[in-house]
Amino acid sequence: MPLLDELPEAVRDLLEQPRVAVLATVRRDGTPATTACWYGLQDGRILITVYANAHRLPNIRHNPHVALTMLGEDPYQHVSISGSIVKMWDDPDMDVMNQLSMRYMGEPWPEREPCVSMLVEIERWHAYGVLSEASDYSPA
Amino acid sequence: MPLLDELPEAVRDLLEQPRVAVLATVRRDGTPATTACWYGLQDGRILITVYANAHRLPNIRHNPHVALTMLGEDPYQHVSISGSIVKMWDDPDMDVMNQLSMRYMGEPWPEREPCVSMLVEIERWHAYGVLSEASDYSPA
Repeated sequence: MPLLDELPEAVRDLLEQPRVAVLATVRRDGTPATTACWYGLQDGRILITVYANAHRLPNIRHNPHVALTMLGEDPYQHVSISGSIVKMWDDPDMDVMNQLSMRYMGEPWPEREPCVSMLVEIERWHAYGVLSEASDYSPA
Repeated sequence: MPLLDELPEAVRDLLEQPRVAVLATVRRDGTPATTACWYGLQDGRILITVYANAHRLPNIRHNPHVALTMLGEDPYQHVSISGSIVKMWDDPDMDVMNQLSMRYMGEPWPEREPCVSMLVEIERWHAYGVLSEASDYSPA
């Protein structure tokens, strides 16, 4: 399973920017759900956080497989990742939300509400409009 | 199941624009996959098209539940939809891709490659930053 620094540089460069991302999870009835989210990078993995009372948290606990599409500045650039939650921890003080708020907004997150934070191990990826056209890879 | 014209006007307005969307499908192994895509609106449903040889086509045939997040102009606006494919048809001349290319780019699609086109019935939705904050609804 590739860590971030094993990906092509252009893909890594996009992910290192604070890009808009869409996270897909699978509900317990097998249907997918998507929502826009912030993400970060930590230990070569994707860092995300959700409110502790989020509907998708029990879904993720049931099915730890997730997918993320990060959109480039040009709407025809994107990097999509499939992976698994490999670490999940209670984050009562919103440490990760704070960190992501600094990354995206340049300021700390104003609220304090219990969150659960997690790391996604990258298992597959594809890119569009990021690498040279011939080497963009779409296994999904 | 709500048709498009039963959604709040602000949500409909966003969907009527040619916005960047991310489509989530579920693979036969139960893992989700996402990719950016174009979409249109037809008969109160979401219109999408995929190449006939796309990896996700057998996945969609196996599990017709999909999710889409449409991003607003402001990156903190989005509308997310869960739904089911209720109609799917062979589109050997890329009629839908042409139609979407006109919608997004103002010109016909230059290639001809067999596609399969489909309509997604909206079963659930949530919005963020689109309605007044109090009425944004997040069932996912």
